[in-house]
Amino acid sequence: MEKERETLQAWKERVEHELDVVVAFWLEHSHDQEHGGFFTCLGRDGQVYDDLKYVWLQGRQVWMYCRLYRKLERFRRPELLNAAKAGGEFLLRYARVAPPAKKCAFVLTRDGRPVKVQRTIFSECFYTMAMNELWRVTGDAQYQSEAVEMMDQIVHWVREDPSGLGRPQLPGAPAAESMAVPMMLLSLVEQLGEADDELAGSYAELGDWCARRILRHVQRGGQAVLENVSEDGEGLSGCLGRHQNPGEDTRPTLPEPSPGHALEAGWFLLRHAVRRGDPKLRAHVIDKFLLLPFRSGWDPDHGGLFYFQDADGLCPTQLEWAMKLWWPHSEAMIAFLMGYSESGDSALLNIFYQVAEYTFRQRYLQSHPRQDSPLKQGTRSSKGITCYKVTWQFRDPEYGEWFGYLNREGKIALTIKGGPFKGCFHVPRCLAMCEEMLSDLLSRLAPASAPAPALSARSPPADPARRGAE
Amino acid sequence: MEKERETLQAWKERVEHELDVVVAFWLEHSHDQEHGGFFTCLGRDGQVYDDLKYVWLQGRQVWMYCRLYRKLERFRRPELLNAAKAGGEFLLRYARVAPPAKKCAFVLTRDGRPVKVQRTIFSECFYTMAMNELWRVTGDAQYQSEAVEMMDQIVHWVREDPSGLGRPQLPGAPAAESMAVPMMLLSLVEQLGEADDELAGSYAELGDWCARRILRHVQRGGQAVLENVSEDGEGLSGCLGRHQNPGEDTRPTLPEPSPGHALEAGWFLLRHAVRRGDPKLRAHVIDKFLLLPFRSGWDPDHGGLFYFQDADGLCPTQLEWAMKLWWPHSEAMIAFLMGYSESGDSALLNIFYQVAEYTFRQRYLQSHPRQDSPLKQGTRSSKGITCYKVTWQFRDPEYGEWFGYLNREGKIALTIKGGPFKGCFHVPRCLAMCEEMLSDLLSRLAPASAPAPALSARSPPADPARRGAE
Repeated sequence: MEKERETLQAWKERVEHELDVVVAFWLEHSHDQEHGGFFTCLGRDGQVYDDLKYVWLQGRQVWMYCRLYRKLERFRRPELLNAAKAGGEFLLRYARVAPPAKKCAFVLTRDGRPVKVQRTIFSECFYTMAMNELWRVTGDAQYQSEAVEMMDQIVHWVREDPSGLGRPQLPGAPAAESMAVPMMLLSLVEQLGEADDELAGSYAELGDWCARRILRHVQRGGQAVLENVSEDGEGLSGCLGRHQNPGEDTRPTLPEPSPGHALEAGWFLLRHAVRRGDPKLRAHVIDKFLLLPFRSGWDPDHGGLFYFQDADGLCPTQLEWAMKLWWPHSEAMIAFLMGYSESGDSALLNIFYQVAEYTFRQRYLQSHPRQDSPLKQGTRSSKGITCYKVTWQFRDPEYGEWFGYLNREGKIALTIKGGPFKGCFHVPRCLAMCEEMLSDLLSRLAPASAPAPALSARSPPADPARRGAE
Repeated sequence: MEKERETLQAWKERVEHELDVVVAFWLEHSHDQEHGGFFTCLGRDGQVYDDLKYVWLQGRQVWMYCRLYRKLERFRRPELLNAAKAGGEFLLRYARVAPPAKKCAFVLTRDGRPVKVQRTIFSECFYTMAMNELWRVTGDAQYQSEAVEMMDQIVHWVREDPSGLGRPQLPGAPAAESMAVPMMLLSLVEQLGEADDELAGSYAELGDWCARRILRHVQRGGQAVLENVSEDGEGLSGCLGRHQNPGEDTRPTLPEPSPGHALEAGWFLLRHAVRRGDPKLRAHVIDKFLLLPFRSGWDPDHGGLFYFQDADGLCPTQLEWAMKLWWPHSEAMIAFLMGYSESGDSALLNIFYQVAEYTFRQRYLQSHPRQDSPLKQGTRSSKGITCYKVTWQFRDPEYGEWFGYLNREGKIALTIKGGPFKGCFHVPRCLAMCEEMLSDLLSRLAPASAPAPALSARSPPADPARRGAE
């Protein structure tokens, strides 16, 4: 018990410190003081290498800042709130391509002119998340009405009529459902319904519908979570139907599967099961959306989660399939720590440790004597002859934030800290949620001599920062 | 001289044999006997893993079969001609999304229903190439009128009014020109004008316009070939403006640069310079589109050409930037052998050898004693204790055709032989063109005692297979 407490405590401190470093990186480098909103194309040291503004990432950063402000006392600082509000104003003013129509751009110029529009719902979903969180921290009703109106539009596109998205109806296009759509909607149901009985009630049926749709992606006799199924919930032929995604598809225009996506869907469903008080669903989700993708998606040779897999074990067609991306690992950390918190099954805690250790790993590589590579100071061995080169998995202790893209062997493939698909979101969300869950687990262990409370049917913790918004 | 002949002869034989193996692969595995057209999603051993039909690759394979039939005596076989005709009929019947409008789909189902449409000109360009070659081998005027009408449509989209492509006009989208567009058009000018004085004359101005537009992509004081420039031929800001592509952009919806693309543009321009009898242009092209991309694009650590680079030396945002793809290497082989053939500069021949040796390399890796990896038979060392694992760069002597995707270190990253962007095109085109150029170089060296003729101002060789079409 004492050993468990120590390990949990060590991880809590590590995660807490890392969150401070990561938030500091975005505060220092990403704010556009002139136009509002955020730069996300940031090099290793935080330098802006492109000033395009991706609407997903604008919405996500607004959401993240508000969430930190609202949930963690030490982040309740005006600089976070002001940057979030400036980001929100940027979105209100520029995100929609042809207001009052709701369709949002995918990417804008620095000053807000639309560059590209995607024919999907995702820009609009992150817009909604941003507006709802802004309302929660400011109490300004305009934000909430923006969020609710956009939500209505998204639900209309998904469940009634997708024609407003502008996708051409082609006779050969399979009537496929991507898991990303019900997943994203389920996270909005949770977002809008938090501590809001009226909205939670009005979205309850939608939440159940989303959960049912996500569960249909468990295919192959329960042995695989597939990214795409037919509209009737059946498997599809070809690559489209064999795609598995352990994390989340950051290139949503390509119809592919990955372990990280299954794990992210897993913790969305886990929270849904807890809200619904459904232990049978909880057990099913842990089995199919946590353990299954982890077992098939973990690289036995080099560690880490693959980006994409083929359900039949064929070679995926995505060039980056074997790369190790940051976000499947941050989603896995959340999923397994949550799985343990909700079930008490220590096997899940051990997987959390395994993923977290891979993610935080600092490797000392013996450098080849003839290799003229930069060496870290102070890493010569005591014998004075062997040199070591320090490399990291995802974390960058030198400049903060995480590298996003490693090759299969864990070497850094891209040195950027942010880009068109990586912003201030997955890393701080993971760290903040893990910090909260670890604190909660530790508080349940205290006092050391008392038995731990039952883990499954807890009510959600009170929100200590909520009063800050009122 | 005798040494040079021997080396050229050895490469000619190697290339000739490899072409036979590669063509045999596609003949055996890719024909759809039921619907016509070709399967291109083929695994290592040729097995079909998806039956979608990508219009680029359908057009390219029709073109390739006709070209082989027409140019190389040993391929003048009914099975190539019949498969090309069946592919042509498939395109005529299904490629256009809404006939009689000219816009073609990007990908079709096996039986020809459109799955996806790209808002670019490339499907239509490969359709045109296919139809023109079909006319050349069959003499059927219907194919040629299809080719010429589609060409008119493409030129209209590029030079007069792009609205038919369906791209939305967004105020933030930069008015950028991708090098791929004038490159592709220039190759069509050559295709349609071959041995056809009337068409060659009517496209002469277009050819010069294409060449001028491609040359505008030499930027940074002549130190980089950039993939995108403004409509006025100036550099652009951000990633879009820093993109270099050594080969060709196989993901044309992403605005990025690569060394292989510059090299491919290089040999298109080289042929243009020869047709125009312009030695000054020839020298400029060798300098800027061959030597410059090779010097910046060759990986000093592991060999091979990078896929993408950033003109300012920043980290590219493409996850696959450091991978070694087959086609930049096949384009480089063509470009440097052509550069040598046209200029006689032996430095270019040496680069051809360097790239060809990288491409054809077979590596014996000492396998780790504990590693349970499949070993090739007969590779134990004479001491009986050291085991070697045979790996290849691109060639696959076991099943034929080339692997398309290696990681930076040259290890096979994807085992597929064909996919959405790799079909029967770059490899056989490279091998057939190199075989022809090597034969030509050898014939210029014979008899061994006679002086080699001047290399620069030759007229193009007579087409021995042309009569087959008449």
